[in-house]
This record gives sequence, structure tokens and C-alpha cells, in this order.
Amino acid sequence: MWLRASCELQFEITVPTPLILMLRPRSGAQQWIAREEYAFSPRLHVEEFSDLYGNLCQRLVAPVGAFSIRTQVEVLTADYVDRCPGAEFIEIQNLPQGVLNFLLPSRYCESEQFNHMALEITAGQKLGYDQVACIENWLRNNILYQPGSGDLPVSAVGVNARQVGVCRDLAHLGIALCRALSIPARLVVGYLEGLEPMDMHAWFEAYVGGRWYTFDATPTASPGAYIAIGYGRDAADVAVCNQFGPPASPLKQVVKVEQFFPKDA
Amino acid sequence: MWLRASCELQFEITVPTPLILMLRPRSGAQQWIAREEYAFSPRLHVEEFSDLYGNLCQRLVAPVGAFSIRTQVEVLTADYVDRCPGAEFIEIQNLPQGVLNFLLPSRYCESEQFNHMALEITAGQKLGYDQVACIENWLRNNILYQPGSGDLPVSAVGVNARQVGVCRDLAHLGIALCRALSIPARLVVGYLEGLEPMDMHAWFEAYVGGRWYTFDATPTASPGAYIAIGYGRDAADVAVCNQFGPPASPLKQVVKVEQFFPKDA
Amino acid sequence: MWLRASCELQFEITVPTPLILMLRPRSGAQQWIAREEYAFSPRLHVEEFSDLYGNLCQRLVAPVGAFSIRTQVEVLTADYVDRCPGAEFIEIQNLPQGVLNFLLPSRYCESEQFNHMALEITAGQKLGYDQVACIENWLRNNILYQPGSGDLPVSAVGVNARQVGVCRDLAHLGIALCRALSIPARLVVGYLEGLEPMDMHAWFEAYVGGRWYTFDATPTASPGAYIAIGYGRDAADVAVCNQFGPPASPLKQVVKVEQFFPKDA
Amino acid sequence: MWLRASCELQFEITVPTPLILMLRPRSGAQQWIAREEYAFSPRLHVEEFSDLYGNLCQRLVAPVGAFSIRTQVEVLTADYVDRCPGAEFIEIQNLPQGVLNFLLPSRYCESEQFNHMALEITAGQKLGYDQVACIENWLRNNILYQPGSGDLPVSAVGVNARQVGVCRDLAHLGIALCRALSIPARLVVGYLEGLEPMDMHAWFEAYVGGRWYTFDATPTASPGAYIAIGYGRDAADVAVCNQFGPPASPLKQVVKVEQFFPKDA
Repeated sequence: MWLRASCELQFEITVPTPLILMLRPRSGAQQWIAREEYAFSPRLHVEEFSDLYGNLCQRLVAPVGAFSIRTQVEVLTADYVDRCPGAEFIEIQNLPQGVLNFLLPSRYCESEQFNHMALEITAGQKLGYDQVACIENWLRNNILYQPGSGDLPVSAVGVNARQVGVCRDLAHLGIALCRALSIPARLVVGYLEGLEPMDMHAWFEAYVGGRWYTFDATPTASPGAYIAIGYGRDAADVAVCNQFGPPASPLKQVVKVEQFFPKDA
Repeated sequence: MWLRASCELQFEITVPTPLILMLRPRSGAQQWIAREEYAFSPRLHVEEFSDLYGNLCQRLVAPVGAFSIRTQVEVLTADYVDRCPGAEFIEIQNLPQGVLNFLLPSRYCESEQFNHMALEITAGQKLGYDQVACIENWLRNNILYQPGSGDLPVSAVGVNARQVGVCRDLAHLGIALCRALSIPARLVVGYLEGLEPMDMHAWFEAYVGGRWYTFDATPTASPGAYIAIGYGRDAADVAVCNQFGPPASPLKQVVKVEQFFPKDA
Repeated sequence: MWLRASCELQFEITVPTPLILMLRPRSGAQQWIAREEYAFSPRLHVEEFSDLYGNLCQRLVAPVGAFSIRTQVEVLTADYVDRCPGAEFIEIQNLPQGVLNFLLPSRYCESEQFNHMALEITAGQKLGYDQVACIENWLRNNILYQPGSGDLPVSAVGVNARQVGVCRDLAHLGIALCRALSIPARLVVGYLEGLEPMDMHAWFEAYVGGRWYTFDATPTASPGAYIAIGYGRDAADVAVCNQFGPPASPLKQVVKVEQFFPKDA
Repeated sequence: MWLRASCELQFEITVPTPLILMLRPRSGAQQWIAREEYAFSPRLHVEEFSDLYGNLCQRLVAPVGAFSIRTQVEVLTADYVDRCPGAEFIEIQNLPQGVLNFLLPSRYCESEQFNHMALEITAGQKLGYDQVACIENWLRNNILYQPGSGDLPVSAVGVNARQVGVCRDLAHLGIALCRALSIPARLVVGYLEGLEPMDMHAWFEAYVGGRWYTFDATPTASPGAYIAIGYGRDAADVAVCNQFGPPASPLKQVVKVEQFFPKDA
């Protein structure tokens, strides 16, 4: 399906502020970036680079005063996120090297704390995809989803204690539970059509059956309509906007996502 | 300056043909990709990846029949390509590791054959930028520039023998001469406004004074107005379109580049 | 100085157990690997790969029964770890891309929690090296060093609460404090001659003045005599031995480090 | 089998000479580096880094006077190089990204010139491994093997014209023929037990059936006994010793390889 998504960030900057943005999605497994715009006001020098995970990042110093960022993409995405019940668990020794990294505990996914709980939740499941689907289902039934983006991220241990969380929190707990089962898992940040209220979204992917599959424990999870912007171990790696120095505020963030039909279709 | 550039490729495919394209420029030192479109007709599955040099490449299998590719970019480029007479030669032991690769001979730049000639051309020059500028100048005066894109690339040895070449050929000879002086040099393929007749363009960069500088020995060289699409050791690494299997023909390639003034400027 | 270091790990394996080891140091800024041995008993198939940080890792499946690993290196290290009081803070916008990653919070270094504390500790210091030296000193005076390697790592927040920790814990808190000041910092695991009791050691590096510098808040810190084995964001990234599946025990770990004088010296 | 191999290089240096060496083999698919030594005389500062292909390289500036390099390895290698007649050709669209690079023409492998010849040689063969085996066989029967290491490398076109070549030349022609068939191929430099006269050896690998396989068209080809040191597109990428500046001579190179039986075996 065709999706048009945009993100606008507005700052009132009081001291020159270094920012690292991650707002340029790349074409990937289930999405093709057909059109894209990316603008800053005022214009300024921006450096673009690929991070450890292949995300395109933009580094700049926001000047004092009103500063805004606007991106828009038109993306052809898969109508349905791939699902594959029964896809097999891949033994550590057979995982591709680039995936091993996603087995390690990370800032918001203290996976080493969840061994017992992960086994309990997935008891009786076939190893692999079905375990992850079972975790996704458990999250949906046991952690109260709270729309919005929260303030500072809460780690998986915290989410599990509170039993409530925003999309990112649910994903973090899901990731920690997967890794506790030796299933590589990573956070994805991006757009999701139909989200209410509309905002950036976060979900997770697990590596089973030889590839990454999408999982999303939020009630707004859709059969398709996802646009991935960034991948990483958790929210520490995948911030749409990383600020350094004194916090820049007020910050306004407007996200829009809509389906559309190209004229030539 | 603001440039709008487009490239359209049309094929008549007779058997399913794997293609690897390099048609998505990245933001870089002197360019910001503000807007971009990329479309295939008919639509098909495309995989995007970064090659060894960080270029974004697209891999697909062109289906039988009429097949076309269309890309368009709007880019804010530096008004003037940076120049820096006097910038110093960097000793091998002080070069960044990522640059060492561009000292080696490559398919179309047999640099190991040009030691004597490179020293002769640059005799009396300060080591570094001035040597490269001298090589650029020598090329302009000694190799007859022939517009167009030629057929198969000719290597530096061949260009030197013929004393005539297209933009890519001049760049290859320039690169070989630089490497012969232990100056890292690489080929750049992209757009240049004002080229006559309009086509894809190729030029080269040399690493002196701690960074890459642009050089272009063609008479159409402009003080600015360049959009880089791909970087590599030579044309073998940087093909806008790499075909595999039986040649797909006829091929029509339409390139346009124009300056424009954004409404909000 | 010349150091000979060895590490022997003995396991009693009850079910085939995937291991990822990090026991092959690489030559680097202040060390040259002159001689190395690496053996498994029984012999088995081992795959070696480089992780995200360039560490050489070994992946294998330990077979049931007695299983041991033995490595030994002879390394020429700098007599004195480089120090550079006054080395400058590098602004975010000027940091090399490969270093940005070490600004982010990580599993055991919740740097986003330490902004206030880091500023307080380093009040009045010149930005850069002197801030890090001040943090190192503060750790030495305020966190009780406890020899040994502890069980599960404790995160910086935990270490700060307990006011006591093993070498790795001190390093984690030091890293979190540096990152809170926008100074890239990373964990190093390796050997240190003279450690009492002898064991693997952990310390940290901070990126100031355009390069990485060594810091070590433990009382056993030596003017030199370090051999680095692995680098990463924190102990989650740099485990000498990562086990998957049911814990393999008992585990015996014997580490030796001694200075020696090569015959031809 | 267990192999002990050593390489000694002796120079008489007249001006300080930057060198880039590739003399530290890594553990890989069919070899485990169990023991290694690496020394310079006189001792000096050496920087080690990984190149584009993952080879460990050493960069240094050789000082004026007698200068020598000595490396020795003890390696457990596979008794037999893997062979797999019938292994299938992998379509371009299904090749791993990291392998695509080895389809391109390179300095000494002008693969774009060999389409017709490659098809002719392999006529009637099953696509994939059998084509490569057929090329290997053709080389053995049609290009006269000349022991020794030659002077400057000759490119595939040159080797084909002369119908005679050293090991590296045969490999270059084999690689060019493979790539002309859209089979990824790369040069390997390393040790081979039993070579007469003993020297460094070069052979090639082709990617079929989902992995790299070893091929060697020289009459000295052995069923096993290979130790790979470096991989690359061709000899331009894989030089055991790359010198910059005026040639350092005389150069003495002593290579030894022998089978041995470890005491504990």
C-alpha cells in the first residue's frame, strides 16, 4: 500500500545545540522509499552518516532561535506484514554474525533478568516464531497500553513492574523476553498508519526462521501500514532526535501518516 | 545553489535481467539531498543496500518487456567546489585507514605504470594539492576531451596512448597519476549542470590536506553545480547501472540538470 | 615493556553449549601482539569473526564433558599509559562518526541519569581530559574498590547506590559520568600486570583531544602494563566468555600476567 | 593437519619507507590459528587495522638500514580442501550483498573481456561449481605453470596472451573467467605446503552453492595444506608487502611451510 508520512519538529533554541537526527528511512525488506523531502529552517550545514546499524543519521548544530525540521516520505509498503507461525528457532552457532549483537542485554532491555519469566510465558510453544508470537500476545494481555510517547524511556524491568507502558515500553519488554530465550530481537522506530493519537511509533522484530519478523504488542497494531525509520538494540540506539547540551524546549512534534493512491496506479 | 536533476533509463528486456543500480545520491560534504523521487515501471521488488564504499545500491530483476527507471533529486549544493592550493601531501603513515584503499591500482587506473610520468608532469610542484592541480591542468591541455559517455571504459594506459577521452577517461588517467604519487584518488559519478550534451558526468577527487577535494579536467568543469551519486576506485566500482546476463537493449538514457529557486528562498 | 599473559578456562559441560569468546587481543595503539597461542581441549570447530567494535570473537559449541580453553600472549606494551592533562573536549559536531556511538546510554551505563552528578563532580575543571581525570579521582575516593570479578555486572546506578564495586563497576560508573558530559567513553577488558588477586581486569577509555585515553579508578591502576583484549559500550558488549543456554558450571578461570625480557632484547 | 609456516623479509632501507604488510592470517572456514609470532628488527611502532575485506594489515615506516620482518604461524587446517561438484550457481539477485563486489572487473582481472571465452570453455557444464572446476582444469591444460613469483603481476588478458604464468597469474585468469560467468571469485594469498620452490602462493575461490570454494590451477595444487593469509579482488588488493616511495632493495624473502605433529595430539 502507498503511505505518505511526515514529521515536523519545532524547537526554540537558546544556545547552539548539537542534534543527531534519524529521520531518513531507507528502502528495505518490506518498503520502498519512492519519494522523500527533508528540510531545515533556517537552512544550515548538515552532515549525514550511517551508524553501526546502517541507519542514516543527520548531525547538525541547531542555531539560536526558532528552528524547525520537516520530513515527508511516500513509501510503498507491503500490504501485510509477513507472518510465519512455525518458523524455527536458529541455534546460536548458526546465526549470521551481524545478528549476534541483538542477543546481548542493552540499556532498556535487561534480558539477563528475564530467563525464568520468558520460559514461563512461552511454556509449551514450539521454539522460534511461536515463542515470539506468544510473548507478543502475553504483552497485549498483561501490560496496559498507554498511548503517547512518554518521557524518558522506561526499561523492560520497569515496564514489567508497572504493568503499563507506551509502545516503546511494550517493545522493550518484548525484546528482553526474546533475548532471554536466545532469540535475537531489535527495536524499530517508525510510522504506523491509523495510530491514535498519531505520533512516532515503536515496535520490535525478532530473528527466527532465518530472517527478521515484525511484532507489535500494541492494540493499534495493524496488519500492514508500517514504515520503519530506524533499527537498533533499543531506544538508546534509535532516537529520532538526540539532543546534547541543555534541553531545547518547547518542542513541538507533529506526525502525520495517511494512505494515498498514486495517480499512475 | 539549488539543482534539480533527473535520470530516466528505458530498457526493452528480452529475458529477466538482474540489475544493480546506483541512482540514489546521499547527502555529503558539499550537498544536501532535499527531495528525491525514485520509480520503476512496472513496479517490482527492489532491494537496497550499501556497498563497500557506502554507496546506496538497488538490486532487482528487470522483467521481460518495456522497463523504465526514473529518479529525480533536488539538491542544495555548494556554490563553489572547495579549492585549496597549497594543501599538503599526507604521508602514507598518517592517512586514515579508510583512505588507503584508494592508493591501490584498480581496473581502469593502472597507477603502478605511471610513476615516472607523474613525477615528470608535477616536477617542481609543492607536494599535495598543487601536484593534483598540475595533473588536472596537464590533462586539460594534453588529452582531447570528447563529449559523450563512450562504450566500454578505457583504462588510464589506453587513454594516455590515445590522447583523447570522455570525462570518465580523463578522470581515470588523473586518478592513476595521483596514486602514482601516493596521493589517494577516487572516481565520482554524478550530475553536472551545464554539461553539453547533457549526460551523466564523471570526475575525480584526491585526498590532500586531510580531506577529499574535487578535480575535473574536462572543459565543461564548472566552479560548482556538481551532484555526486557514487564513489569508488574507478568506473568498475561506480556504474550507474550494472547489468548481468545478455545485454538489454535498446537502452535510452535521458539526463537533465537545471538550477532552480525554491519558493521559500 | 614485555608482558606474557595467559587465561585458562575450564568447564564441565552437561549439554552442548554455544559459547562466544573474546580472547584474542589485537595489536593497537599502545600494544603489539608479538606472540600468541590459543587452544581448545578437546579440539573442535571454531568460527572467528569481528564484532561491531572490531573485536575478534570466537564462536563454538562446547561439547559435553570436560572442556578447556587456553590462551597465551606475549605483548610489547607502552611503558606508560599516555596521559594528557589539558586535552580538549571535542564538540559533538566535530567527533568522528565512529565515536558517536559511545555517547549513548548502554546496559550498565545509564548515562542519562548522571547529568547533574557529573557536572557537580567536575565543577571548575577545564572541559575534556581534566574532567575525566577528576571523575577517575572521585571514583577512587568515593567508591570502595573490591577485588574480584563479582557475579552479574551491576549498572552505574547500582554502583553509585552501593558505593562499592569491582573494577568493572568502577569503570561503568566512570563511563556513565563521562557520557553525561558528552564525552565518549568505552569499557576495556584485558590484562593488568600486578593485579591482586590476579584476574581479568576492566577499565575505561575516554575520547578527548582527538583520541582515546586510558583511565582506571582502581587502586591497582598501574602506570603501564595493560593489555587490552576487547572494547565496547559496557560489559554487555565485552564478555570474555558469553554462554547461551543452561549455565555451564563449575567454571575455573586462571589468569596470569608477568613481565619478561625477551632473549634478543 | 597441523602446519607450521614462516615468512622472513629482509630489506636494506635507504630512506624511511612506509610499508603496509598483510602477514597475520585470521582463523577462518578451514583453518584455526593456534599459535603465531610476529617480530620486527629493529623494533618500531606498528599500527594494525582491518582493510575492506577484513584482512589484518600492519602499517609502519621502515627505518634506514637493515630491516627485517619475521612471522611464524602454527595452523590447524582441514586435511582436504572442500570440494562440491554439482554445487549450484547462485543467481545475482540471491547473492549475499558482501559478495557482489567480487563480480566486478578489477585491476588484474578484466572479466568484461572474457564473456565469450568463458562460455566456450565451460560449454555443456552444469552452472556453478562444475563450470569453475572446468575452468580450473582448462587453465591446468592450457597455461604453462612457471614456478616463482614473477615481477609485477600480469593481468588476465596478458596471461591469456602469453599462455604462461606464475600461480598468481593462473589465479587471475581463473577469476576473470568466473566473473565473466557471473560467478563471484576472489584471489587468496597464503602458504601451501609442498610448493617447489617454496614461496608465497596464490590461488582463487569461487562462490557457488552458497559459500566459497577453493580452486588452484597450479600443478602443485594439493588436496589440503593451504593457509590463507589475505583475500581480495586480485593481487592489487592482496599484497603481502606494499611499499611506497623509492623501491627498497635488495629484498630477501624466505618462506617455509612444514607439517608437524603437536606433542599433545
